[in-house]
Amino acid sequence: MANDPLPSWNGGAAKAAIVDFVARVTKRGGADFVAPADRVATFDNDGTLWCEQPVQVQVFFAMARLHALAEKDPTIREREPFKAFLDHDLEKIHALGKDAVFEMAFATHAGVTDDEFDAIATAFLASAKHPKVNRLFTRCTYRPQIELLEYLRANGFRTFIVSGGGIDLIRAFAEEAYGVMKEHVVGSSVKTRFEIRDGRAVLVKLADLQSFDDRDVKPQNIRLHIGRRPILAFGNSDGDLPMLRYAKASEGASLALLLHHDDGDREFVYDREFRLSPLVDALDNAKTYGLEVVSMKRDWNRVFDDA
Amino acid sequence: MANDPLPSWNGGAAKAAIVDFVARVTKRGGADFVAPADRVATFDNDGTLWCEQPVQVQVFFAMARLHALAEKDPTIREREPFKAFLDHDLEKIHALGKDAVFEMAFATHAGVTDDEFDAIATAFLASAKHPKVNRLFTRCTYRPQIELLEYLRANGFRTFIVSGGGIDLIRAFAEEAYGVMKEHVVGSSVKTRFEIRDGRAVLVKLADLQSFDDRDVKPQNIRLHIGRRPILAFGNSDGDLPMLRYAKASEGASLALLLHHDDGDREFVYDREFRLSPLVDALDNAKTYGLEVVSMKRDWNRVFDDA
Repeated sequence: MANDPLPSWNGGAAKAAIVDFVARVTKRGGADFVAPADRVATFDNDGTLWCEQPVQVQVFFAMARLHALAEKDPTIREREPFKAFLDHDLEKIHALGKDAVFEMAFATHAGVTDDEFDAIATAFLASAKHPKVNRLFTRCTYRPQIELLEYLRANGFRTFIVSGGGIDLIRAFAEEAYGVMKEHVVGSSVKTRFEIRDGRAVLVKLADLQSFDDRDVKPQNIRLHIGRRPILAFGNSDGDLPMLRYAKASEGASLALLLHHDDGDREFVYDREFRLSPLVDALDNAKTYGLEVVSMKRDWNRVFDDA
Repeated sequence: MANDPLPSWNGGAAKAAIVDFVARVTKRGGADFVAPADRVATFDNDGTLWCEQPVQVQVFFAMARLHALAEKDPTIREREPFKAFLDHDLEKIHALGKDAVFEMAFATHAGVTDDEFDAIATAFLASAKHPKVNRLFTRCTYRPQIELLEYLRANGFRTFIVSGGGIDLIRAFAEEAYGVMKEHVVGSSVKTRFEIRDGRAVLVKLADLQSFDDRDVKPQNIRLHIGRRPILAFGNSDGDLPMLRYAKASEGASLALLLHHDDGDREFVYDREFRLSPLVDALDNAKTYGLEVVSMKRDWNRVFDDA
C-alpha cells in the first residue's frame, strides 16, 4: 500500500486495532466520534518509544554524570551505590530495584541550574552511544512508534510522553526525535529552588525527588499536566498499567496498547524478570484490562531506523 | 486602524511595547528573531485575565461548595474558617491571608473524583454571577487580554495560564473563554489518589495541598509543565514577580508586563493593600525589574465585553 501511514507495522490484529480506532474516533457523525480537543494520546518512553535494555538511558546518563563528579571528588568512587554505577555493574544496579536506581540517578544533578542541565543533557545525547546496539541513544528510538505518533497527529491527536524517566532529559531530545513538544512531555522530576544568581533568575535542581512518574503517579501526572483522560495510551510494563486503565475508563472509545519485547534477534527478549521495569500483571491479565498486546517480533517489520 | 489586532488597547507605551516586541521576535533574519518553538507566553489569571475583586472566583467557588456541604453537615456552619466563607464575611476572609484562604478553598473538594469535580466546576461556572459587576464570572474576563492572547497565537506563540487558582477550576472554562487548551493551564493543585472504583480507574482529590502556584512556585511550575522560559509574561501582583523575572532572564528578547488596577469607574482600584494578592515590590521597582506597567485606566479603552 503506497500510502500506508504505518509502513513499519505488519498487517495483523494490532495494526488493525489502531487503524480502526483512529477511523472511528475521527469519523464525524459516527457513534465513536471524539472532538479534536479530546484526542489525547499518551506514550510511555523507556521500552515503548526507545530501547531500555540493558538499563534505561537515564542510568547511562547518571553513570556519565558520576564519572564527571568523581573527577572532582574521587571519594565517591568507593561509596555505594555510586561505585556500582561507576563500575557499570549492571547486576548490582538491577538488584537495587527501579525506585532506588531512578531516585539516585535524578539526584546526580543537584545544584545544577535549569539552563546548565539542558546543556549537560544535550551534550550527553549528542555523543553517548548504546553499548550493544552500537548507535547513538537518540537513534535507539523505534521507527514504528515514530510513524504511529505522526499518524495520530495527522489525525488531530495531541501526542504526549508520560515517562518514569527524568522530564528534563526527555525534553532534551523529544522534539527532534519524536516531534513531541517539551510541554507535551510528562516525567519524573526533582524539586527546584528559585534563585537570583548574578542578577539573573534561575532554578536550581535539588536532590529531593518531587515526583517519580511511575505506576499510580502516571494518571495523577496526566491529570496534573494534561487535564484530560487520554483516549489512547501505549506502554510496555506494569509501571504503565494505571495509565492504560485510566485511558480505558474514558467515557467514549479508547485504546490501550502494550508492547511486548519478544524479539531477541532485533532487540531484546524480556518481561517479568526485568527488575528495572517488570511486566507481569499487564501481560497476564491483558484481556481482563482490555489491552491490545503488540508483539515486536510479529507486529513490526522494522525496529530501528536504518543507517 | 481597520486591521488593528488589539482594538481595545489605546495607542500608548504599553501597546507600542507589545506590538514592537512581537514584530521583533517574529522577524525572520532579525537580531531578535525567536524560533516558533520558543515563543512561549505565560499569563497569570486572577486580576490579569479576569476580575479578582472583591475576592477571587476561587473563593466564591469555595463558598458555594461549603453551602452544599453544610446541607449534609450543618455543624460546619459554626466552625471557622468555614463560617466566614458561609457568611460571605469578606473582611474576615481577607484577614486570613492569601495562603490560608486558598489552601482552605482547595480542600473543599476532598473526596471528589476528577470527573465529578469537572461536573461541579462546570455547573458553578454556568450560573454563578459576580456580585458587583453583575454578570457571569466567565464574562468577567478582560476583552483587551483576550485580544492579546489571540494576537500572540496568530504570531506563532503558545499561550499558557500560570495561576495561583486551582488548575482544574481554570481548565473548566479556559478553552472557551481564552482559547487556552487545558494542557496549557498551570495552577495550584491538591494531591490525588488513584483508585479503581466500581471497576473504573478514577482519581480522588485529597485535602492535602500539592502545589500553591504562587511566587517562586510559578517559575518552578513553568519549568515543570512547559520546560522552557517564557519570552513574554503578564501578571498583576507580587505573586507574579518571580515569573516576570524568570521571563526577563531569557537569553534573547523578552517582555514582562504588569497590569495596574487603577480604574475605579470600570473596575476596581487596588494594589498594595489587597491582602489576597498584594502588589508592592513589582510596582515600586518596575523599572529595576524591567517591567512594562499597563494602566487599566489609560491603556484600555474597554475592560469587559459588552452585552
